This record gives sequence, structure tokens and C-alpha cells, in this order.
Amino acid sequence: MKFSYVSHLYCPKCSKTYSTEEENHLCACGSPLLVTYNLDELRGKFTADDLLKRAPDLWRYHELLPVRQNNNVISLGEGMTPLVDLPALGKDMSIPRLLMKDEGVIPTGAFKARGAAVGVSKAKELGVKELAMPTNGNAGAAWSLYAARAQMSSTIIMPVDAPSITRNECALSGANLFLVNGLISDAGKIVAEAVKEKGLYDVSTLKEPYRIEGKKTMGLEIAEQLNWKLPDVILYPTGGGVGLIGIYKALQELKELGWIESDEQMPRLVAVQSEGCAPIVEAWEQGLHESSFWENSETIAFGINVPKAIGDFLVLDALYETNGCAIAVDDDSLLQEQQRTAELEGAFVCPEGAASFLAARKLREKDWIKEDEQVVVLNTGAGIKYPDTVNFEVPTLEPGDSI
Amino acid sequence: MKFSYVSHLYCPKCSKTYSTEEENHLCACGSPLLVTYNLDELRGKFTADDLLKRAPDLWRYHELLPVRQNNNVISLGEGMTPLVDLPALGKDMSIPRLLMKDEGVIPTGAFKARGAAVGVSKAKELGVKELAMPTNGNAGAAWSLYAARAQMSSTIIMPVDAPSITRNECALSGANLFLVNGLISDAGKIVAEAVKEKGLYDVSTLKEPYRIEGKKTMGLEIAEQLNWKLPDVILYPTGGGVGLIGIYKALQELKELGWIESDEQMPRLVAVQSEGCAPIVEAWEQGLHESSFWENSETIAFGINVPKAIGDFLVLDALYETNGCAIAVDDDSLLQEQQRTAELEGAFVCPEGAASFLAARKLREKDWIKEDEQVVVLNTGAGIKYPDTVNFEVPTLEPGDSI
Repeated sequence: MKFSYVSHLYCPKCSKTYSTEEENHLCACGSPLLVTYNLDELRGKFTADDLLKRAPDLWRYHELLPVRQNNNVISLGEGMTPLVDLPALGKDMSIPRLLMKDEGVIPTGAFKARGAAVGVSKAKELGVKELAMPTNGNAGAAWSLYAARAQMSSTIIMPVDAPSITRNECALSGANLFLVNGLISDAGKIVAEAVKEKGLYDVSTLKEPYRIEGKKTMGLEIAEQLNWKLPDVILYPTGGGVGLIGIYKALQELKELGWIESDEQMPRLVAVQSEGCAPIVEAWEQGLHESSFWENSETIAFGINVPKAIGDFLVLDALYETNGCAIAVDDDSLLQEQQRTAELEGAFVCPEGAASFLAARKLREKDWIKEDEQVVVLNTGAGIKYPDTVNFEVPTLEPGDSI
Repeated sequence: MKFSYVSHLYCPKCSKTYSTEEENHLCACGSPLLVTYNLDELRGKFTADDLLKRAPDLWRYHELLPVRQNNNVISLGEGMTPLVDLPALGKDMSIPRLLMKDEGVIPTGAFKARGAAVGVSKAKELGVKELAMPTNGNAGAAWSLYAARAQMSSTIIMPVDAPSITRNECALSGANLFLVNGLISDAGKIVAEAVKEKGLYDVSTLKEPYRIEGKKTMGLEIAEQLNWKLPDVILYPTGGGVGLIGIYKALQELKELGWIESDEQMPRLVAVQSEGCAPIVEAWEQGLHESSFWENSETIAFGINVPKAIGDFLVLDALYETNGCAIAVDDDSLLQEQQRTAELEGAFVCPEGAASFLAARKLREKDWIKEDEQVVVLNTGAGIKYPDTVNFEVPTLEPGDSI
């Protein structure tokens, strides 16, 4: 048995192929590249029972990940996050079979750790010494921390408005950190220039093909946690959309591997955005296969403030192919949903996760989600990473006072 | 097979016994109560292999937990946190076999979730509707969130200086939250009065016997993750000391159950405190079995700012019985250790965790820890819960700038 059954990279637009043994970023045609595996070779040799004795982290699926040598794995124990029943919130929104995949329970407190773990490990395997990326905060935090663990240096540029805790995470890890008085797209332009001039390894969203493989493990885990059955609907807060593309890719690979029955229906995938930044929703409503740059984007759900995603066509394809949809929600209502989730379920979700719960509620109201359907909502990070979204007046006592 | 093999409560001071079928807090003699199990009945029926098919959370050990009915379990998927190899930091401090048990990777971002999960579940089983506690922040956050999930109300009182994010967690869950212009001991007095007057269920540290059972699972997990062998040393940041007591109790139970060989040596347990609040260290240095109230306590490691722990004698006994020790570290140095841990290992630990890494470093310098020993450090929470301990100046660019 090999550690990884990775085969090669291919372009989903023009079908050109590339090697995983050398640095590759975008296809010559400008499209992101995807990783493919020798699933025919693996089929039958690797069964779900093999997982039982493995640690509860994402490396339990190493055969389906791109890192060839075990000793290149850079891990902080990320993955196998809880899939939690939410009976009270589910009752409140008439979706009794509501589940949360809680990506707050992971190193760095956000699902970005998955992409960083696999991406940094593969970068190490390729001999990379210095990486660079623009970020809305959480991805930069994760990549700079995992890079530190791999003894790699990192250059990170994030908007001044990004959650301040993510700034601390980058700085503490020793990253070359810069803020930009603008959006992630402005940060992206500065990174692109630095990559060209200084020869840094570009790990911008989807300009690096392995992050998606890390995110893919969310789909593998959901399937394993549901005993290789699939839910009816999966809702995902969509900025760059890598997680949604990854989950879709994971489920296709599991079908090809035979771990999921071929007649099992794919879940309808839902891309959740904010009304202040909804390029995917706009494109989906118009039946388009690509989105347009969203001008003057703004939302409290900072992780999904992405005006134009480079993988937009892959997200939209996944929505069309699974009979999914895209939906935008407003900031005030998502904050109410965040509070409701804490009050009813004891779960302090991040604003992006709250947006997705709100989207589930709205889709149920429209009867797009049926009452008997099993629905998985991705909470992409811990609420504690966003202290400023919560404001309460709390009474202060003096010693000796009583209540 | 029963879900739980819980037997009864007993007093470690006067040996009086109490039932687990009704509310019990302290013994009539003033001591905390401990839970005991029918291990003789369980032995042989329950083997480590039974765990393989169970979810990676602390309820995998339900036979060794006090909740009798599965349907009383209130869980957010807590437990089975990573036990992470730290080769670079280990090399830096000449402890090549250094491991971190990372309790930041858990709902609410701190190990307090364990005590809350088991404590709230047992409270639910006992029919409790309203609980109350003083807290330094993280415990209050965890208990109020788990109480919300159990549809129980909670009254929480914390110092004004407690980490502000924990205030948000309590408030968002709908707790009756109060701040006190003082220490946790001042909060404790106000809670004690409210408990008496309003008949609330007191879940102050060790005034409720089940929290320790939740914390105990850290010990069960460390043993399982090391394949039922024990490390040489375990370092634990000690405020109330419940985790240390719990880990010691867990390892004793595993020996009694036969999952750990009877000739396997107990790890030397180390209580880590801050120089600004070191009552256990003071008592240990004097060979005493009880600590004295530490006046004007102050430390940046807020979770271990506990001037007098009600279970101090249990902590000290565990240190003496395992040939362990107690050690205090200073705030400035622990912040340096926090940065070193991030730079070398990509782990953003909490100040209390950093204190414990620093303690390991100091004990190695003194040769109290030998170079070939396996050492487990408890990082009790995520660094992201303490944004104010990290301060960096970061340059700000304008769109179009270059680096």
C-alpha cells in the first residue's frame, strides 16, 4: 500500500495535465488546477474498516490526499470535527434533522486549518521555503501557523478590517504580516507582485491546487460520520468557495471508490452569501457559469467578503449539477441567528456559520428544503474568533453585593 | 451492559458516602465529594477494543462517567483532543519527547467544556433547572453554553478583568451574567448567597462532584492516545486543580480496570502556577497538605488566578503520591514561551498553557525532568481566547503599494 494514490493535476477547463512532483499553480489557460487520484488502483484495497484504528484527524484519509511521504505531513491534529445534532434549533426552523458540522473545533479555530495542513505539507514535499498569500484573516492565520511548524517563512497581507485576532495569530507565528487599507482583492494584487518579484510560492485561493484537497476532507468526514450515507442538503458559507468545491469533489471520489453506493443521490449544495457581497448568488439567479466582480462589498461575515472568486465556475457547476442553489442573507438577521444558535443549542458559531443557519431557515420557509430532509450546515469557525460581533451590557457588582 | 457503572459518592476526607441519585454538593465535613464506580463489575466486560467504533469524543468512556441514561447526555462533540508531537520546541528545551495535549481544540475553546458537558448532563439527570457559579471566564462560558443546550438557566458571576470573550459567550447563551469588581473569590461569595436564597444548583468548582469526572477524560484520552502506556511527566496549569485531580483519578481507575499494567509507573504530576498566585507551590515547598489564601493575587494567566482552591489537598496529595512537584513561573517569561511555541510549532497556546511549557523548560534545566523522558504538557485552551496578551505593530499598506 502506498501512502498516497495521487496521480496528477488536471485543468477542469481545458483538460491539460500537470505533474504533482513540481510546483504548479494555475493552468496556462488561467484556470485553477484539480488533483486526481488512481482510484481504480485503490478500489478494494482500501475499505472504510481500515479507518477504524486511525487517529481522528484528516490524515486518516491519506490515500486520498496529495502528500506522498508520511514524513512530510505537518499536522496539529486537525479534522474529524463534530457533526452535532441540533434538535432545538431544528424544531425552531422546522428542520428536525438539522446537523452542524462544527469547524470551530479545530486548530486555529477555523476550517482554514484543513487547507493549510494539506497545502503546507505538500509545499514542504515540493521543497518550498517561502509562501505568500492574501487573506480575509482566518486563512492567513492558519497558513502562517502551519508554515511555522514546517519551518517555512510566510508573507501574509490582510485587510485592516479583518478580525484582529487573526492578525495576532500571523504575527505570533513570525509571519511577514502586512495590512492593506482595502479588500482582499487589493491584498491579492500586492501579493501577486511580490510573488513575481521575489519568487515566493503563491498560495492564494486556488492558485495552489492542494488547499482544496484539505477542504475536501470535510466531505469525507460528513460521509463517514453518516455511515457512508449522504444528507439531502449541505449549506456552505461561500467566499472563495473552496470548501464547497472540495466537498463536492470528495463525494464524487467516494462514489468512484465504491464507499458510497452509486445510486445514492448527491446532496443539493447551497452557496450562502451575504447581501453585501453576493456575486455567486447573482450569477446563479441568472443561470450564468461565471460571476462578476461585486463592487463595494461589505458584510460582518468577513470570511465571505470575496467580490470575485477565481473558482466561481466550479462553485456554480456544483450548484447546477446537484440541483442546489445560492442564497444571500442580511447581516442583522444573521446576528440574530447567531444568538438563537447559542441560546437554543449552546453553540457559539461564527457569523459565516450563522449566515448558513439563517439560509437553511429561509429555504425551509420557501419549502425548498422539505421538513423530512436531513440538512448539514457548515459552521466554518468558532464564534470566539469574532468578539466584536457580540455586544451586551452586563451589570457590574462590588464585592459583598448580592443579586 | 449498562451505560454507566457509577456506584456512589464518597468523601476523601471522612469516607462518608452519598448517593448519585440525588443532588449532593460538599460532604457534611466540608470536603468535596468524589465519584466511585463498580470497576469490579466492569472489569473484563469492557475492553479497549470496544472503543474503536465509538465517536472521538469523551462519551466514548461512558461506562466510566456518572450519567446513567444516554438520553441525558448533553454533548457538542467535546473530547479526544489532539496529542501533538512538538519536536522543534522539544529540541529547544532538550526534551525531545515533548507532547502537547491541546485542549484548545474543543467546543468553547477551553478544557472547561469537559467539566461542563458531564456536569450539565448529570444535572439534567438530577432534574436541575437552574445552576449558578463563579468563574474566571472559561468555565462560565462553557457551563452557560452547555446549560443552554440542556434548556437549563444559569447564573454566572465573573471578575471584570476576566477575558472579555468569555463574557460574550455567557451573554449570548442567555445566562444571567454579572461582573464583579474583584476576584473569583468575591464572585464565589455572591454566588453562595444566591444559591442559599434562591435554591440554585451550585456548580462552583468541586462543590459539584461531576465536573471532575469530565476533566478526568483528559487522563483517559492521554492513556488511550499513548496506547495504554503512561508518560513520565504531566504538567498542568493549576488554578482550582480539578484537571490534575481528574487526570490522577483517571489513571488510577484505568489501572484498577486492568487497561494499564499494574507495574506501570504513574506519571509525576506537576502543578504549574504563576508567581503572582502560587498558593499550591507555597504549600508544596513547605510539605503541607493544604494551601493558604494568596493575598492580592495577579497574573496574566487568568485561568490560574485562584487564591485558594477548595480541592487544594487533593492536588497536593496527587503531587506527593506521584513524586511530582509544584512550580511557579513569571508572566513576562510565559508570554515569551507563548511566542516561541507559535514560532517553532505553529501552536497558539493560551497563557496558562504557555506557563506549563515554561515550567517544563525550567524543570529540564534543573534536571528534574530527564532528557529521555516523555513529557505531556496540557494546553488548557486556545490562544485566540486571549487576544489582549498579544501586541504587535503591523505596517499598513494602501491599495497599489508593493512590499
